[in-house]
Amino acid sequence: MTSRKLQVVSPVPADIDIANSVVPLHISEIAKDLDLNPDHYDLYGKYKAKVLLSVFDDLKERQDGYYVVVGGITPTPLGEGKSTTTVGLCQALGAFLDKKVVTTLRQPSQGPTFGIKGGAAGGGYSQVIPMDEFNLHLTGDIHAITAANNLLAAAIDTRIFHENTQKDAALLNRLCPPNKEGNRTFNDIMFRRLKKLNITKTKPEDLTPEEVNKFARLDIDPDSITWRRVMDVNDRFLRKITVGQGPDEKGMVRETAFDISVASEIMAVLALTTSLSDMRERLGKMVIGNSKSGDPVTADDLGLGGALTVLMKDAINPTLMQTLEGTPVLVHAGPFANIAHGNSSIVADKIALKLVGPGGYVVTEAGFGSDIGTEKFMNIKCRYSGLKPQCAIIVATIRALKMHGGGPLVTAGKPLDRAYVTENVGLVEAGCVNLARHIENTKAYGVNVVVAVNKFSTDTDAEIAAVKNAALAAGAFDAVLCTHHAHGGKGAVDLGFAVQKACENATQPLKFLYPLDISIKEKIEAIARSYGASGVEYSDQAEKQIEMYTKQGFSGLPICMAKTQYSFSDNASAKGAPSGFVLPIRDVRGSIGAGFIYPLVGTMSTMPGLPTRPCFYDIDLDTETGRVKGLS
Amino acid sequence: MTSRKLQVVSPVPADIDIANSVVPLHISEIAKDLDLNPDHYDLYGKYKAKVLLSVFDDLKERQDGYYVVVGGITPTPLGEGKSTTTVGLCQALGAFLDKKVVTTLRQPSQGPTFGIKGGAAGGGYSQVIPMDEFNLHLTGDIHAITAANNLLAAAIDTRIFHENTQKDAALLNRLCPPNKEGNRTFNDIMFRRLKKLNITKTKPEDLTPEEVNKFARLDIDPDSITWRRVMDVNDRFLRKITVGQGPDEKGMVRETAFDISVASEIMAVLALTTSLSDMRERLGKMVIGNSKSGDPVTADDLGLGGALTVLMKDAINPTLMQTLEGTPVLVHAGPFANIAHGNSSIVADKIALKLVGPGGYVVTEAGFGSDIGTEKFMNIKCRYSGLKPQCAIIVATIRALKMHGGGPLVTAGKPLDRAYVTENVGLVEAGCVNLARHIENTKAYGVNVVVAVNKFSTDTDAEIAAVKNAALAAGAFDAVLCTHHAHGGKGAVDLGFAVQKACENATQPLKFLYPLDISIKEKIEAIARSYGASGVEYSDQAEKQIEMYTKQGFSGLPICMAKTQYSFSDNASAKGAPSGFVLPIRDVRGSIGAGFIYPLVGTMSTMPGLPTRPCFYDIDLDTETGRVKGLS
Repeated sequence: MTSRKLQVVSPVPADIDIANSVVPLHISEIAKDLDLNPDHYDLYGKYKAKVLLSVFDDLKERQDGYYVVVGGITPTPLGEGKSTTTVGLCQALGAFLDKKVVTTLRQPSQGPTFGIKGGAAGGGYSQVIPMDEFNLHLTGDIHAITAANNLLAAAIDTRIFHENTQKDAALLNRLCPPNKEGNRTFNDIMFRRLKKLNITKTKPEDLTPEEVNKFARLDIDPDSITWRRVMDVNDRFLRKITVGQGPDEKGMVRETAFDISVASEIMAVLALTTSLSDMRERLGKMVIGNSKSGDPVTADDLGLGGALTVLMKDAINPTLMQTLEGTPVLVHAGPFANIAHGNSSIVADKIALKLVGPGGYVVTEAGFGSDIGTEKFMNIKCRYSGLKPQCAIIVATIRALKMHGGGPLVTAGKPLDRAYVTENVGLVEAGCVNLARHIENTKAYGVNVVVAVNKFSTDTDAEIAAVKNAALAAGAFDAVLCTHHAHGGKGAVDLGFAVQKACENATQPLKFLYPLDISIKEKIEAIARSYGASGVEYSDQAEKQIEMYTKQGFSGLPICMAKTQYSFSDNASAKGAPSGFVLPIRDVRGSIGAGFIYPLVGTMSTMPGLPTRPCFYDIDLDTETGRVKGLS
Repeated sequence: MTSRKLQVVSPVPADIDIANSVVPLHISEIAKDLDLNPDHYDLYGKYKAKVLLSVFDDLKERQDGYYVVVGGITPTPLGEGKSTTTVGLCQALGAFLDKKVVTTLRQPSQGPTFGIKGGAAGGGYSQVIPMDEFNLHLTGDIHAITAANNLLAAAIDTRIFHENTQKDAALLNRLCPPNKEGNRTFNDIMFRRLKKLNITKTKPEDLTPEEVNKFARLDIDPDSITWRRVMDVNDRFLRKITVGQGPDEKGMVRETAFDISVASEIMAVLALTTSLSDMRERLGKMVIGNSKSGDPVTADDLGLGGALTVLMKDAINPTLMQTLEGTPVLVHAGPFANIAHGNSSIVADKIALKLVGPGGYVVTEAGFGSDIGTEKFMNIKCRYSGLKPQCAIIVATIRALKMHGGGPLVTAGKPLDRAYVTENVGLVEAGCVNLARHIENTKAYGVNVVVAVNKFSTDTDAEIAAVKNAALAAGAFDAVLCTHHAHGGKGAVDLGFAVQKACENATQPLKFLYPLDISIKEKIEAIARSYGASGVEYSDQAEKQIEMYTKQGFSGLPICMAKTQYSFSDNASAKGAPSGFVLPIRDVRGSIGAGFIYPLVGTMSTMPGLPTRPCFYDIDLDTETGRVKGLS
């Protein structure tokens, strides 16, 4: 079977078996459907292509298509099928409703692929293919981020080392070596630092000793360094490490850590940038820590903004793939949904909106529940992109609603309690308070909200009716049952119709939850109220950081809350729609280059671990066919 | 100007300016010249393609072309132009002598690109283009190695952690969880371990407690772990680190280090493998350390051989690029030339030899001087590939020969002494002892040796004549002056003719320096004799390791000496052709999966550092054109 003609069987086979049962179309055929000419993309093998940003320039006069964001209710640890719904809806719009459609998705980290979680390409008959390429190196964007992130990290420690072992004049001489004619000069990136220091001189020899000191000595406070090394591997032993213990490093040891690569600020930059020149500026502005006198030290101060951009120059182009039914997908960027904003890239969405054109659809997913994902989509991503969605989807499952209604604990890897597989309308109705708050919050942005009930085989008609009623009562534009996991696009045709109607009837402008020109605390409090909190409590550390960022001139940035996805509140076990709680802010950090401040509500792990028997035990290559086995 | 029509100017412009002045051909045109059809390769953008291993199957009946290896005399720290000569010769053979030709080169590490060294694509009018793509991510092979290497590293520490915190029965239960039917089973990779342990049982519940212990508990001795993490960045602060300091790791701290990625054993595997199934076996056999009872622990024991192969499945395909004159280049693998064998891949050479066919030429470079590079090419690479070169080139410069004749110290970054830029035939003649020994050693393999004198503008006719005479007297087949740096392929036409004649007149079989079935020490001593040593001295540590590897059954592997490239001896300042010295072996290590034992003659740095003003200061992207600036 080749892509586009999906023949479903029941019961639904394993994801990898479905993915392997379909021969993907050559990606140039998908590109052709989008009217892309071969100059608009670079092939990466037969099933992937990088769409070049220049497409956007060529199409800038064209009107955008409709823009749809997929969020969810507060999930169980099993996930409620947001990616699957996103893919299924697009298969419906493209393969059944004859609409131009592009799905825009995040690139998954390779860490979990080999750990516990397995892949992230959707599921059942709603998947992105080839599934192994989606989950593995793809077109190297995350590897580019790793390389760029770690070059900056190496530059930080090495610079401190060289500053500690050289006097000002020697430092200047090394930074500005004589050229062929014997003259010392500043280069482009050095002029950026000179400008920041308000030094207008153009020749190294004209600097006063004080200016030499300011220019050549970044004077980084080692304790202030927030930049960590990264690796796209689940390596728990790197959560806290000591570096610099080699004899040549002269005792300049320092405690630090590795994060998983997708937690790098460079990933957030990639997701939020709008052009090559914008990316150059954001990368250069990334703050790695402070000088001993409290000034932020940036990548450009270290001479690296340009080199980082060079490392990221191909990564800025989104990767074109396809769904099981041959509709186009742009995979691009995958920032964390807590310490970052959890949305795929702006550039992919912008290109996609031009490619589908008026009457077409771009459907993108926002990570975690809509309290986090959709909120950040609106207040961070749309704020930077200038784009406005017409419709927001909230994916709900009977299972999760029952949990919110008071059902027993749902734990990954353990069998579901009976309550979840037998009819219990009361539990569903009680749980709809969670759905209702997500609807109200999302509606407040000025979009039409469509609830998608992702059906499991054990769900009953009465339970589904209860959800629909509650959704409409809470102000949803529509609420629709979907069976795309079992049936592919055909199972999401009703959702497609509802989304079409919602988009065609969208009239309001985008209303942000908060303006940018209020204080950091006021912004945090506006978001906290949307969670149902009665107030916010700041730790001393958080107070200190807020004061610092304000003083450094960064208080105008949007806020990216790092909060659990398992509750509206900070307490993961508070299900339903908790209210009246005080939201604790433990710490406040900044991704200044990417462009947001992120308050930490609790502890966020930025480096997962491996279980005793990781997925990798089952992953192998059939060396006869070259096919990947055992990916799930 | 498009590729193939080279218009040279004088004086020779900067490498990047030459590279940027030529518009490369679409790589599909290069592929077409090689009679590759589109099924034989995957495009990676417009100027790179991965040639698929299946090509080899399609062409296996075709006769191989001539096989030429490029080595050098003992170099100065400035390098004597081995890569440039390799590329220049191929431009001559392909663009001027109308021969089918493929250059096979190593992929450079990205670390030095941003550090001191700059790029590695040749130089002047003999370069691989696009130069930025060659020096940066290329097609992601090194990134794949980094990912695979570090997944294995994470698995090691995590496994020790889980074994320390779980009893045997719990470990077995976690390793073999019940399937849907409630039965526990072993999977494929577990059967590999069971076989190694001589356990023939097929069900977990049938194991005796003792067998459970042997199967489930790898019992890795932390002090024996030789597997390190890697990063393709010059990060000196990772040369010695402590990991596991996070509170969740329960005090299981351990000292370890990062190497630069190209030092990973996986890179050596990639370079020495001959097929997908061979790579699967080599990756699985990699030894990461010993159990507490002294048995080697492998990647397969950790359940990872298959997953590592999946991560490396695209990396096994060589990358097709082109020279400035449009001749094809296969870039593939770049193992260290000391702790590994410093040669590009076997699979690229095998494919290339079929592609050029009878009468065509494959020219490959061997890292460092021929005492190291060519020796390892013959005794390790050709031993595993079964291929036989007809001709070996030795690149010499007047500059290096003068140094060997007693000229003053040559230091990178400092002006050359007058002796090197004015005629001094006596110094050249005296230095030819170095060249002579390289010729004799190389000739002993049964190949015809052609000396290529890489001309600098200050070299005089009398100096060059002295080298030619000495070369012929030492048994060289021919000695030829080349000016490919200044003139491109045209400057290496004479070299091309000489190589052609050398290949057509090659008659001897390949004679290895040592057989495999002698002891590790006997092999080390055979190589030491070729250096001019009168004997070998082993440290206690080296003795211990040799005993261990012999006991573990690895004494039949070839030897890969980790020695300075700056002298035949262990003493970098002993120029010319030292003899009578005793070669000290400090330590002996193994790359068991790749397939060699490597004795350490002195200390080898496997993680470079950054200078105070790294290259990255000058590297930037022109965000208007997307072009890379400042790469050198």
